[in-house]
Amino acid sequence: MRHLVKTRAYNFGAGPAMLPVEILQEAQDELLNWQGQGMSIMEIGHRTSQFKVLLESIEADLRTLLSIPKDFHVLFLGGAARTQFAMIPMNLLSAKDQAGYLISGIWSAQAYKEALKLSQAYCVASTESTGFTEAPHPSEWNLQDHTRYLYYTPNETINGVRFPQVPKIKHTALIADMTSCLLSEPIQIEDYDLIFAGAQKNIANAGMTIVIIRQSLLDESMPKMIPTMMDYKTHVEEQSLYATPPTFNCYLAGKMFKWLLNQGGVDAVYAQNRLKAEALYQYIDQSTAYECKIEPSARSLMNVCFHLKDSKQEQVFLEKAASQGLLALRGHRLVGGLRASLYNAMPLAGVEALIQFMQAFAKE
Amino acid sequence: MRHLVKTRAYNFGAGPAMLPVEILQEAQDELLNWQGQGMSIMEIGHRTSQFKVLLESIEADLRTLLSIPKDFHVLFLGGAARTQFAMIPMNLLSAKDQAGYLISGIWSAQAYKEALKLSQAYCVASTESTGFTEAPHPSEWNLQDHTRYLYYTPNETINGVRFPQVPKIKHTALIADMTSCLLSEPIQIEDYDLIFAGAQKNIANAGMTIVIIRQSLLDESMPKMIPTMMDYKTHVEEQSLYATPPTFNCYLAGKMFKWLLNQGGVDAVYAQNRLKAEALYQYIDQSTAYECKIEPSARSLMNVCFHLKDSKQEQVFLEKAASQGLLALRGHRLVGGLRASLYNAMPLAGVEALIQFMQAFAKE
Repeated sequence: MRHLVKTRAYNFGAGPAMLPVEILQEAQDELLNWQGQGMSIMEIGHRTSQFKVLLESIEADLRTLLSIPKDFHVLFLGGAARTQFAMIPMNLLSAKDQAGYLISGIWSAQAYKEALKLSQAYCVASTESTGFTEAPHPSEWNLQDHTRYLYYTPNETINGVRFPQVPKIKHTALIADMTSCLLSEPIQIEDYDLIFAGAQKNIANAGMTIVIIRQSLLDESMPKMIPTMMDYKTHVEEQSLYATPPTFNCYLAGKMFKWLLNQGGVDAVYAQNRLKAEALYQYIDQSTAYECKIEPSARSLMNVCFHLKDSKQEQVFLEKAASQGLLALRGHRLVGGLRASLYNAMPLAGVEALIQFMQAFAKE
Repeated sequence: MRHLVKTRAYNFGAGPAMLPVEILQEAQDELLNWQGQGMSIMEIGHRTSQFKVLLESIEADLRTLLSIPKDFHVLFLGGAARTQFAMIPMNLLSAKDQAGYLISGIWSAQAYKEALKLSQAYCVASTESTGFTEAPHPSEWNLQDHTRYLYYTPNETINGVRFPQVPKIKHTALIADMTSCLLSEPIQIEDYDLIFAGAQKNIANAGMTIVIIRQSLLDESMPKMIPTMMDYKTHVEEQSLYATPPTFNCYLAGKMFKWLLNQGGVDAVYAQNRLKAEALYQYIDQSTAYECKIEPSARSLMNVCFHLKDSKQEQVFLEKAASQGLLALRGHRLVGGLRASLYNAMPLAGVEALIQFMQAFAKE
């Protein structure tokens, strides 16, 4: 089976995204018989002692990687991160509460839209008028008194925009959609009250959402008639086992956490991620054929969005790249252009191969 | 890799459950490089042409297997089936509507509880007083006028109870939780207005829910302020791609649908399922050591729940069975006893091995 590795390509897709080949190989080896159980991990009941031990070790490794304090719960939930756009206002806003949203790209705009639909929310600041080429600068924020939480998206996958700093606020909870950046750079969990991330970028395959939530946020939340599956308290009380969790995704996430620990932890992969992104941005900036419109201080380390100055060449670029095993470089359908996603699993060699190809293509 | 097959056990777990070994082998072979794409299926974007072609073929095969008419939509949603307990009343009941629930076991009771929490619902009939050893008989149903839908659970996984017939009703929509029986026996889709099933029994690994819904049910549904992710119309309009779907589960489901077609379709596996269940019930009924308390007309084909007359021997039974590769025979924690789940992937040979073991154990 191992010979297939030779035929693996560099996958720059924004998610579902590349996974470390070592993890895929381990999963492949164990797929019919996990831990000598005579069953695949996919066939093991979520209430068995085997699965509970696995889930506990996964949570322990994640707590180690991010130094998660004891007063934060870690949830492994089934389904897409987009459900959080509704769960957050439904769980946290009573009829008289409001929430503030920082809009730095399409995902934070969508989250804001959902909050407006279900509760009271307002825009603290938006860079939409720039075409989302930067993150809202703190001097332009309009954070009102009596704001239950401030919501932002540290890394905008579609627009390639990253907040240069964590918002410094007082007396307001801080909530972050870290779908495309969790575990890619160091964070202080204590800076936040709720973090969530879909799995399909830096964690595992699609179909799972990780939520890290401060206990005191739940203590203060209003009891409302919300669907039991959308109530954070349900999942905290049942330790992510209220409904059948996505067991295979949990298992792969566990392998990813071990892989990250073996790489030296989040600091080590962050150093690697900076190297990768800086090499690519540096090449683009000095090139006459390519352009990145994102403000340098707000450039994503995970999703490098750029354009060919001659946009008519885009299709040829994509086809030639694919023929050389450089895959999924098309920008998101809502913004066009090109995008190279450089999640943890993308090796530096992949970025070097991309830059080499871009150089050769520019020459033609 | 293939030598591992010899070490595979018979897994009688109720879900996540056994998968056909051929499917696991195919997935194993392709895990690092699917269709020569240089990527795992887990790494492929859900908006790529490759994934869309896959999703279309999966839907087409399911439509073939169940003869699904064109005015029914098929949705492949992320997350557990339990979310449907809330989505159904939220989507279908306006403030003045009510729904009727048939309670034949723990899952229908949970669905009813959720409907009561969010909307107006009433119990049409319940067999709770029997200890859920039978399904409510139509002569005892109290179906009120102006009932928006009748909800029932054709197969109760925990209690091992199956409705002998499809409810015959008029002027009321019919909704069925088929999590543990979809694709195990022939159904007429036209008898229903909405069917749903979690994947982890007869379809794929845990983390996906299939919903089959009649268009006219959506036409009549009330526009309400419900979370966008919980709105059936969202998923119908976006063809299951509103959020990132659980792509690997979809892929495995596709393999399962092909496998079922190769077995001869649902009629053929139903014949096999009857053989398996009848052999086991027959042995239990004539045995002096074991007992099944479920009314013969309401016995599940998928989940055979039984007891040792000498219940003190249960733990020894489970341990001995496991040592012989007969796994996960413990009854659900809420009801105790023993349970053999005989989903499509369980071969007749597995049931024969179980009966042989039970005979030997009874002799001791």
